[in-house]
Amino acid sequence: MKIYFAASIRGGRNDASLYQALIDDLKTRHTVLTEHIGNPNLTADGQIQLTDQAIRDRDIDWLKAADMVVAETTNPSLGVGYELAYAEKIKTPVLILHRDQVNHLSAMINGTGYFDKIFSYQTVADALAILQRELP
Amino acid sequence: MKIYFAASIRGGRNDASLYQALIDDLKTRHTVLTEHIGNPNLTADGQIQLTDQAIRDRDIDWLKAADMVVAETTNPSLGVGYELAYAEKIKTPVLILHRDQVNHLSAMINGTGYFDKIFSYQTVADALAILQRELP
Repeated sequence: MKIYFAASIRGGRNDASLYQALIDDLKTRHTVLTEHIGNPNLTADGQIQLTDQAIRDRDIDWLKAADMVVAETTNPSLGVGYELAYAEKIKTPVLILHRDQVNHLSAMINGTGYFDKIFSYQTVADALAILQRELP
Repeated sequence: MKIYFAASIRGGRNDASLYQALIDDLKTRHTVLTEHIGNPNLTADGQIQLTDQAIRDRDIDWLKAADMVVAETTNPSLGVGYELAYAEKIKTPVLILHRDQVNHLSAMINGTGYFDKIFSYQTVADALAILQRELP
């Protein structure tokens, strides 16, 4: 499958190494269109070599091409919220991973019936087990 | 006008007093449907007396009823990102206030042509002047 992995960039890069681990696992079985999101050298400034419009247009093209969106939502992010709404609009399946012990997932996301695959986890190993079970 | 004021709740309440000041100003000239967002007693846990689905359904009803969305986007928020995409989908006008000196606005939001009223500001007084000029 082609997977759009969604996670925070300008919202903060505290979880960048976690994103990398999830992407590395997904890449063993699928194609990850957004693998730059796990890049440890990508800071919260984002991809400053591109205009925001170029980033947006590229990301929307990838979102439209994807068979599935996988989002790590623990670090709040405007872009991820936008991407989840866009995936709902174009009816792309979504899998959400969230660490409830860090914070509560947005009511706007958790309360939207379309998002019916929301998995709470604690450790990276837990998250990898979820991905391997749900996206073999 | 009926205004849907969008800002972070579970994404973090560091700016709650700022949201209150913006809402108080808007209320002198307009109806603010989401005035609870400025409530200093509302924590990042959110409105725990309601289910997430009830919060989501109420907020979507307000969003559909609104003439305008005003979003303060400095504190990253999944819910605000979702709401901005939803406003774009139903063609509700959007005004965004962002403090560029704190962080960069999401490329997904800043790069979306529909969001053509994005105002950078520094102080509360600046933000109030923008609201008074744009939403008299």
